[in-house]
This record gives sequence, C-alpha cells and structure tokens, in this order.
Amino acid sequence: MAGTTQDPYADRYASRVNHMTVSEIRALFAVANRPEVVSLAGGMPYLSALPLDVVGDLVGKLIRDQGANALQYGAGQGELALRERICEVMALEKISASAGDVVVTVGSQHGLTLLAQAFLDPGDVVLAEGPSYVGALGVFAAAQAEVTHVPMDADGLDPAALADALATLRAQGKRAKFVYTVPNFHNPAGVTMTEERRDALVALAQQYDVLIIEDNPYGLLGFEDEPGRALRSRDSDRVIYLGSFSKTFAPGLRTGWVLAPPAVRQKLVLINEAQVLCPPQLTQRVITEYLTHHPWRQQIKVFRELYQTRRDAMLSALNTMMPSGVSWEEPRGGFYIWLTLPEGIDSKSLLARALAHQVAYVPGVGFYSDGQGRGNLRLSYCFPEPERLVEGVRRFSSALEQERALRSVFDGDVR
Amino acid sequence: MAGTTQDPYADRYASRVNHMTVSEIRALFAVANRPEVVSLAGGMPYLSALPLDVVGDLVGKLIRDQGANALQYGAGQGELALRERICEVMALEKISASAGDVVVTVGSQHGLTLLAQAFLDPGDVVLAEGPSYVGALGVFAAAQAEVTHVPMDADGLDPAALADALATLRAQGKRAKFVYTVPNFHNPAGVTMTEERRDALVALAQQYDVLIIEDNPYGLLGFEDEPGRALRSRDSDRVIYLGSFSKTFAPGLRTGWVLAPPAVRQKLVLINEAQVLCPPQLTQRVITEYLTHHPWRQQIKVFRELYQTRRDAMLSALNTMMPSGVSWEEPRGGFYIWLTLPEGIDSKSLLARALAHQVAYVPGVGFYSDGQGRGNLRLSYCFPEPERLVEGVRRFSSALEQERALRSVFDGDVR
Repeated sequence: MAGTTQDPYADRYASRVNHMTVSEIRALFAVANRPEVVSLAGGMPYLSALPLDVVGDLVGKLIRDQGANALQYGAGQGELALRERICEVMALEKISASAGDVVVTVGSQHGLTLLAQAFLDPGDVVLAEGPSYVGALGVFAAAQAEVTHVPMDADGLDPAALADALATLRAQGKRAKFVYTVPNFHNPAGVTMTEERRDALVALAQQYDVLIIEDNPYGLLGFEDEPGRALRSRDSDRVIYLGSFSKTFAPGLRTGWVLAPPAVRQKLVLINEAQVLCPPQLTQRVITEYLTHHPWRQQIKVFRELYQTRRDAMLSALNTMMPSGVSWEEPRGGFYIWLTLPEGIDSKSLLARALAHQVAYVPGVGFYSDGQGRGNLRLSYCFPEPERLVEGVRRFSSALEQERALRSVFDGDVR
Repeated sequence: MAGTTQDPYADRYASRVNHMTVSEIRALFAVANRPEVVSLAGGMPYLSALPLDVVGDLVGKLIRDQGANALQYGAGQGELALRERICEVMALEKISASAGDVVVTVGSQHGLTLLAQAFLDPGDVVLAEGPSYVGALGVFAAAQAEVTHVPMDADGLDPAALADALATLRAQGKRAKFVYTVPNFHNPAGVTMTEERRDALVALAQQYDVLIIEDNPYGLLGFEDEPGRALRSRDSDRVIYLGSFSKTFAPGLRTGWVLAPPAVRQKLVLINEAQVLCPPQLTQRVITEYLTHHPWRQQIKVFRELYQTRRDAMLSALNTMMPSGVSWEEPRGGFYIWLTLPEGIDSKSLLARALAHQVAYVPGVGFYSDGQGRGNLRLSYCFPEPERLVEGVRRFSSALEQERALRSVFDGDVR
C-alpha cells in the first residue's frame, strides 16, 4: 500500500462510517476563523457579554468548597439539583415536567445522539424540516436513517406537506420513527412556527402515531414576544424535548438535556451511562450554582438585546446592499438569516469568491440530506460586532455582484 | 395499556436497545452509597487528596481572564494545547506520539464509544479478557457485538489462550475486530501484564492481523515499579490507546483521549463531532492549566502512596480474616482486588447478606458477558479510609461465614 493514500483500515470499519462525511460547516472553520475574514458562518454565542468575573469567582469557590464532590463521578441521569433548575427554565415555555424525567446530556447534540441510539435502526425514516439543523442530519446519517425533508415557510413547518409525507409513508406500509423540528428561530431558516401550526403538528403526530423531537436551543432568545408555548406543553407522551445551555449561558460547558416520557427516559439513561458513564459533574455544578445565585433571566435579556441589535444591523445592511432577486425572512429571534440567491447562482461556488472577499457563510446544501439548498445560504449575526456585520454584508454583496456579472457573461456565451 | 407496566414505546426502539441492561454496578450504587455501608464497590478516586484550593484558584482565574474562549465551542478533536500535554503524559510509558493523532473524548468511556461506532457492526467479534471492564462490555453490548472472553492469570492475558481463540476464529472464517485489554492494574482483576506477554500479544496481533485496544486508566498508579512500556510503544499501526485523567486528576472533568493511527483518528473526529460537536472546552482548559502550572507528577505520587497504604490495609485484613478457600492476587497498583470464593458460594446471592452486614462489593458476573464470574467478586480499596477498609473486610468476612454455614446446612439437607 506504500505510495497510495488508501486507508489501510478501510476493510475494518463499521458500515455506518461510510455514511459519515465532513460537515460543510466544520470544513469551513479553518478559513473562516482567520482574523481578516468576517465570519457570518459560525453559530458562536457572544460570550464577552457574560459576567466572567462573577462566573470565575463562583466556580473558584465551588471547587475550593465542594471540589471533592464537584470533581467526582456522578449519576448517569445527571445531578438532581440541576434537573430541578432545568424544570424552572422549561416552565418559561409553559412546560410542566418532573426533574425525574430530565436526562442531562453533553450538550443537546448528545441528546440527539442518545435519541438516535434509542430509536433508529438502519433504514428507519425520520421526517425533518427542509432545511434542517446540520448537526441533527449528521446524527441521523451516522444512524443510517433515511431523512425525508418536509418544506417550511415563514410560519415554520408546513402541516399540509407533513400530512402528505405521513400519508405517503402509511401507504408504503412505513412509519416515521419521529418528526424532528426546531420550532423557534430555526437553524438555519430563522423562522418560528406559529401557534396554529404547533397545534396542527401535534394533532398530526397523534393521528399518525409518531413521536416529535422538539429541539429548542433558541426558544428564550426571542426579540419581540414572550417565549411561545412549547410543543411539549401540548403533549407530554408524544413530544420529546431537547434543551441546551449553550446559547443562554455557555457552549463550552457542553450541557444540554432531554425531557422524555418515563419509559424512554429510562432507556436514555442506560445509553448515557454506556456512552459517557455520566455527564461532567463540574460543568453541571457550575450551571446549578449560576442558576441558583445569579440573575440568569436578566442575563438572557442582555443576550436578547445584544442579538437584536446585531440582527437589525444585518437586516438593514441586506436591505440596502442586496440586489434584486435575493430574498430572506426576518428572524424574530435566534442567530440566523436564511438567504435565497437569484436563480442560477450556486452558493457553494459563490463561497470561494466570498472567501476571496474575506467573508464567510455556510452554503445551503449542508442543511439538506438530499442535495437541495444550492440556491440558499445561512448568514449568522450572533458573534461579530454590528459594524463588522455591515462590513461582512458589504463584502458579500461585492462577491455576489462579481458572480452575477460572470454568470451573465458565461450564460450569454453558452446561449 | 392502562393497568399494565408495559412500555408503550416498546415497538419503536432500535434493536440495540434490547441488548442493553442495567449495569450490576450502577444498580448497586443506591444502597452502597448509604453512609452506614462500607462500600468496597465503587471505583471513585479519593479526591480529597487533591489541592482543591490551588485548583479552585486556577479555574477561577482561567474563567476571569480567558472565559470568552474557555466557555466557547471548540474543535471536534479537542484543544491542541491539551493534546500536546497528553503526549507528555504518554511519554512516561514510552509512547512516542504526535498531538495530531490524539482525540480528546468525554472520558475514556466515550473513547470506547467512538471506537465501537467506528469499528463494530452487529455480530462482529471482540476478544476481551475474562473478566473485563464492565463499562467496555456495556459499549460492546450496545454495539451488538459478540464478546469472546480470553482467560487471564496473575501475569495478565494468557497468550496461548489468545492464540487458540484467534485460530478458532480463523478456522470459522471470522476475524475479531479487535482485542480489548487493560494491561495495567486490571479492572477488575487487579493484575498486570508482564513484558513478555506484551511482546507475545503484539506478535499475535501482527500474525492474525487484528487491532488491539489498550485501555490504560491506571498505568501511572503503580506502587512498586516505574510505569511499564505501553503496548502502543511496541506497534503504532496496530495498537489504539485509550487514556484518562479520571484517576490521575479528576473524573468529574470527564476528559480522556484516544491515540490512533491517522486514518482511524480522522474517523474518530468525525464521530466525536457527530456525537457531541466537541468535548467540553472548560474541562479541557482546566486540565491544560493544571498540567502546565501544577507539579502534576508529584500529585500522582501522592495518589500512589495513598492507594498503596489502602491496598496494604485491605490485603492485611484479607490475610487475617478470610477463611480457607478464598483466594486473590495482590495488585501492584490501581484500585481493585479480585476475589475467588470457595466452591459453591455465589457472589450475587452473598451480596444481599453482605448488604445486611453493611458492606458492599461488585459481584463477578457483571465483568463477563457470558455468565461466568458467579464465584468471584471485586473489592475496591481506593475510596474508604484504611480503618474503614478493615471494618469492611470484617463485615464481609462475617457475611461470608454466615453464608458458608447456611450453605453447608442446606447442602446437607439436599443430599
């Protein structure tokens, strides 16, 4: 095998490995993180807005006073005190839950992994919005599941399209293992599911006897209204809820949770133990202390206002600088704007030109499992300062203008 | 379904869920953790021996000064600075490695999970010592692999028995995906593989073209000798190495690592990203700071001497109090003593009596996937103070005496 680049272990891997590819986002990070590039690609929260002195003092004291416990092994389900605080957080979205039915996970990404382990055999069908969170698609691919995308619009997942998809599956003698949805400030689409559509989604899940996974990392980051009523508040038997502290506190703690019916929760704890023994005790205690001793609701308000200012800056820049034929929905919370390019412009080809203009974004194809999204891309406004956002949109608009000019010459030549 | 305890989701789970059962150890913890019980069951390190003030100050400063990075998302492979420190740790066991081939994981348990995801399809064969680490057996069961146990003795895994197992598989047209071994201060067997046997194991792996997983959480906790030469130092293509900070620093940080050949490492990073996006940034930075600014080798020496004192106390108590017919190997490091009971005494039945005597241990069957181990049990000496260990052995010996008395009456009646 000398002189070749063939993988000498290729005949040993599990079959699932063939279904795993490098994520569009991850592959991009090396370039996007260069300081001269304005990155509109990542979904990093703006942590400089945290009271780092307060958190540092709180964690230092935690370790000095309770280190022998805070640094020890813990329960596979996660710490009870944290699970109780989590129920208080969920109550803001009208969820009534018992701490006994919460499982703490290594970020909500790991919650998705646990659910895939619990429910997905190779070939199983998952229904997911189109576009959908790239990390969820990665989990479903690793589980060798088949994702069927259901269209969404400005009001979120389209119930009529979902009804069609469910009826088609039933006619084929199949049942989806679950419907995966991000109802609030969708990643990447930026839209929020209306109350009426939430009712319709839950009614369809009941009619077709399928589970719903409600993935809600952004729910408390709305700019205009009070948090909406979670899907889980409508049906506690059929909705499995995923939460996260990554956007309301800090992602480097990798702490999320799953709220599931008792029978499912038991399985998730078993899988959690098998995979990691227990979630990190230190990060759990840090969050418990923070939620107990710090005005965390006020801190979320700080984040909301900060992200609203950035969204406004980006929307204003887009409105001013985008040529006709480019469209987007205005997000009412969260981190993202989903852009639709003029007919004939491919967001992956455009990316090379954008990087030459020192601006980065995520092409749309990564958010579909079936090749859709070539005419779309995701812009994020969460991390850069407002003036950098405006500069980023300016660079992006130059790149787009060049691409359009080239495209029209090229199209002219061909015809 | 009202009035029954049937799981209403039973028809939806993935097939792997049927292979997962509650661990013998975990189920026991509720009782074993009562303060009146002397627990010789758990494998919790004695963290009160850590300089908690120093660690608290270091972590507080880390968050105050670098919190916006230390609490942020990170790389799926883990932080480069930590991976460089990890290479220094592995050099103590004569491993020469590049930080580029290290993947940081959520404890070495998650390293095992990543390897199972990378290599194991349902029905694949894994060779493992008998007895074997219960957490590894859980991972292999979740992957629906078939574990074949290979006997071990006071010198570790028996190469002749391994050669037989490999030849048998070859005759059946099968190949084991890997040989899983804990070469140092084995959990639960307490024994250490000799240098000659390490050479023999690597030679067999080369002859039969199988991989070795070297799981080494206890390697630096030897009481008598300098750390031995790792299997990985003998063959970097065929040995995948798992390391952990749980026993040399703190398990509540859930930080371990995998050292793998480049092609395998690439797959592991992909799987790590799919499962958790990235390992917790905070715990990685804490360890990096600790390894950089604290005399960690000296701290490991403190742990070694502390555990040696406890091992001596337990061995002395066993030598004094155990009746004839009970046998064990003397561990030269680590946390555990593996006890063989007199013929006819079942360690699971004995446990109920032991708990009534307010002492806990782990029955042997949990360390096999095929029902062996009924005449064995694991005692740990890592956590209780020496006088509690002696008291624990005293209670255990009373329970055993009662069980033997009952057994001889019962056997008399039956015959």
